[in-house]
Amino acid sequence: MAAPLRLGIAGLGTVGAGVVRIVRTHAAMLSARTGREITITAVSARNRDKDRGVSLTGYEWEDDPVALARRDDIDVFVELMGGSDGPALAATRAALDTGKDVVTANKAMLAIHGQTLAEEAEAKGRAIRFEAAVAGGIPVIKALTEGLAGNQVTRVMGVMNGTCNYILTRMESAGLGYDTVFQEASDLGYLEADPTLDVGGIDAGHKLALLSSIAFGTQPDFAGIDIEGIERIKIDDIRQAADMGYRIKLLGVARRTGRGLEQRMQPCLVPADSPLGQLEGGTNMVVIEGDAVEQIVLRGPGAGQGPTASAVMGDVCDLARGFRLPTFGQPATTLEQVPPATSGLPAPFYLRMTLVDKPGALARVATLLGNAGVSIDRMRQYGHSEGAAPVLFVTHKTTRAALDEAIEAMRQTDVIVSEPVALRIESV
Amino acid sequence: MAAPLRLGIAGLGTVGAGVVRIVRTHAAMLSARTGREITITAVSARNRDKDRGVSLTGYEWEDDPVALARRDDIDVFVELMGGSDGPALAATRAALDTGKDVVTANKAMLAIHGQTLAEEAEAKGRAIRFEAAVAGGIPVIKALTEGLAGNQVTRVMGVMNGTCNYILTRMESAGLGYDTVFQEASDLGYLEADPTLDVGGIDAGHKLALLSSIAFGTQPDFAGIDIEGIERIKIDDIRQAADMGYRIKLLGVARRTGRGLEQRMQPCLVPADSPLGQLEGGTNMVVIEGDAVEQIVLRGPGAGQGPTASAVMGDVCDLARGFRLPTFGQPATTLEQVPPATSGLPAPFYLRMTLVDKPGALARVATLLGNAGVSIDRMRQYGHSEGAAPVLFVTHKTTRAALDEAIEAMRQTDVIVSEPVALRIESV
Repeated sequence: MAAPLRLGIAGLGTVGAGVVRIVRTHAAMLSARTGREITITAVSARNRDKDRGVSLTGYEWEDDPVALARRDDIDVFVELMGGSDGPALAATRAALDTGKDVVTANKAMLAIHGQTLAEEAEAKGRAIRFEAAVAGGIPVIKALTEGLAGNQVTRVMGVMNGTCNYILTRMESAGLGYDTVFQEASDLGYLEADPTLDVGGIDAGHKLALLSSIAFGTQPDFAGIDIEGIERIKIDDIRQAADMGYRIKLLGVARRTGRGLEQRMQPCLVPADSPLGQLEGGTNMVVIEGDAVEQIVLRGPGAGQGPTASAVMGDVCDLARGFRLPTFGQPATTLEQVPPATSGLPAPFYLRMTLVDKPGALARVATLLGNAGVSIDRMRQYGHSEGAAPVLFVTHKTTRAALDEAIEAMRQTDVIVSEPVALRIESV
Repeated sequence: MAAPLRLGIAGLGTVGAGVVRIVRTHAAMLSARTGREITITAVSARNRDKDRGVSLTGYEWEDDPVALARRDDIDVFVELMGGSDGPALAATRAALDTGKDVVTANKAMLAIHGQTLAEEAEAKGRAIRFEAAVAGGIPVIKALTEGLAGNQVTRVMGVMNGTCNYILTRMESAGLGYDTVFQEASDLGYLEADPTLDVGGIDAGHKLALLSSIAFGTQPDFAGIDIEGIERIKIDDIRQAADMGYRIKLLGVARRTGRGLEQRMQPCLVPADSPLGQLEGGTNMVVIEGDAVEQIVLRGPGAGQGPTASAVMGDVCDLARGFRLPTFGQPATTLEQVPPATSGLPAPFYLRMTLVDKPGALARVATLLGNAGVSIDRMRQYGHSEGAAPVLFVTHKTTRAALDEAIEAMRQTDVIVSEPVALRIESV
């Protein structure tokens, strides 16, 4: 049997404790599968005395994750601290610098610094693995970079923030408003310390940037993503969408076109009877379309101790088996820098706004839509309150640009009371 | 860049032609991803002159697949001929014997000879990869052996024969009987030359034997599977199940218990609103449950040129990258031989039979169920025809053994007209 694979784990929150638990309870299984023992040499966390529900006996303790990363008695640095910069980045760099492989769950760090980190790792002949950074326990990074390596990927889509999906499905099932459910989610501890990361689509955007890179052979480009959060979705939107056979999901979509790399993370309408439409609560789903495989749908828990630790351990086992591939599936120096492209693909849109309750208001916005070349498929006015009339349109297929032109023109009038909400109806 | 990886492809049917197409059209992409060129040295098929829609220019031709497998100018033998024995087995052995890695889509060969082939391969330090053998384009072998390597798998389930699922969903959507839809499927070329392989559950059983082995660290045991085909499913069963909120699927289920390895491939009732229940047509689905990951659901096309070739190329790319693991995820000599176990897990059952239309017949069978300890949740008598009365029961949770005892007792009476059909209601 080969020498043991020695881990140094930085970050002993939920996921770190889960990794320790798997290494301790499944030692025999792991060595049967990988042909070598997997051991933990040392760990690091902010608080040494916290009870994490797992024994840390036999592991060295390092207060400083950078010192942990530099130890010469570890082979793999497991980074589970989080944060795009700061200690996580410093320790990851230290690990690569001193010839360690890195396994990380840190989507923010890789979405922003992935290109340079990948270049550093490859210059040193080391690997960075990040299955746990995208879609929790679903082995989607592996599916894309390895299982589907024979495909030219044509589209990647996904619901990848469980908190947003929890909020949207809970609003629908309980008939509650956004603010109420947001508070619930906060009380349940589902939200990041900065909730904008979740509900603003940032966290899911980080994941999409990583998926795009491995799907299309491009440099991760988080800044190029068209991001919109779920904060403006009202219970009325959810109900109106349901009436028409749709559900609202915070959906990431990436396509590489002749014009550039299209990356969107936005609330969209999807058919209620599609796999994406049926996704409840914190479950994640990634849909991969390729020229050979047609369409693959992967579904599983997007977060939590077990699922995320499972993903980390998948990466650890790969390294124990000696599987090494470039961070983003092909050498970082060959990843293309592709300009962001807005979607030129026409789609129907859901458009909701509140108009002043005066004669001619509806005709005015309908005219503005027509002027922008946007034709209306359905229109519904659904009740008044205090001089304001909520109205929704479903357009025929149009481009986002045409719709934005119409919305800009509406803003110049005195007939709209609230900023219009436009949601793409995605074909899935 | 490393030396090219040289393929020898035996079998140029739909899948073989699809592999040739990918290698020819995506040469640059494949070498960017794997770090080396992937080339085809030689091919072999029964008919040299057939038009396969792809160019074979530049490839040597071998009439004999064994001669192809033995060539010293190939690195990987790609076996796409099919058949559990005969030329496929002979050529695979020849390839291993002469130090080649093997990629195969041959579920029958591996389900039956997998253990000895894996031992032969590992003795020679070679790999056998078989992603294409199970669930078409879905990278499920990879997910189980690599992505989920940190999990103790608790259950694997799947709908893995697209033809059966086509027949069952088409019966429901078109309201047609089994024989009519079977003929349709036959006319459409969906059936194997020996249709029993499909509708008898054999093909899906082969796939389940492979999944069980990698999930539970056991030797593949096709003979130990409790197999039942879909031939006895009537449109009435489908309608009655639908009325109660279920769909009928040919479902494979494997669990390792203290009593042995439970492997079933049988028509089951699953909730209509579950991912498995919603599966239409030729699509496949595999559900994996593990102690860390909870539940992962993988869905995709179960057959066809592109999807199957995609799976073959995933394996080829892994070999090009130097990824090697034992055939069934751990060394073949460490795979356990576990006795088959019938399911001791109680479940509700759907039980349909036709009774003679005489007073007391229903009371008689109800008594026999009670005598066997099977209690009845629901009963429905749904129309008569010529002295026969179709009846269905839904039982409370019971074991298959208790139900079989009751059915055996019914056979001894003169009140049942046709052999009872019993379908497990699987919790998914």
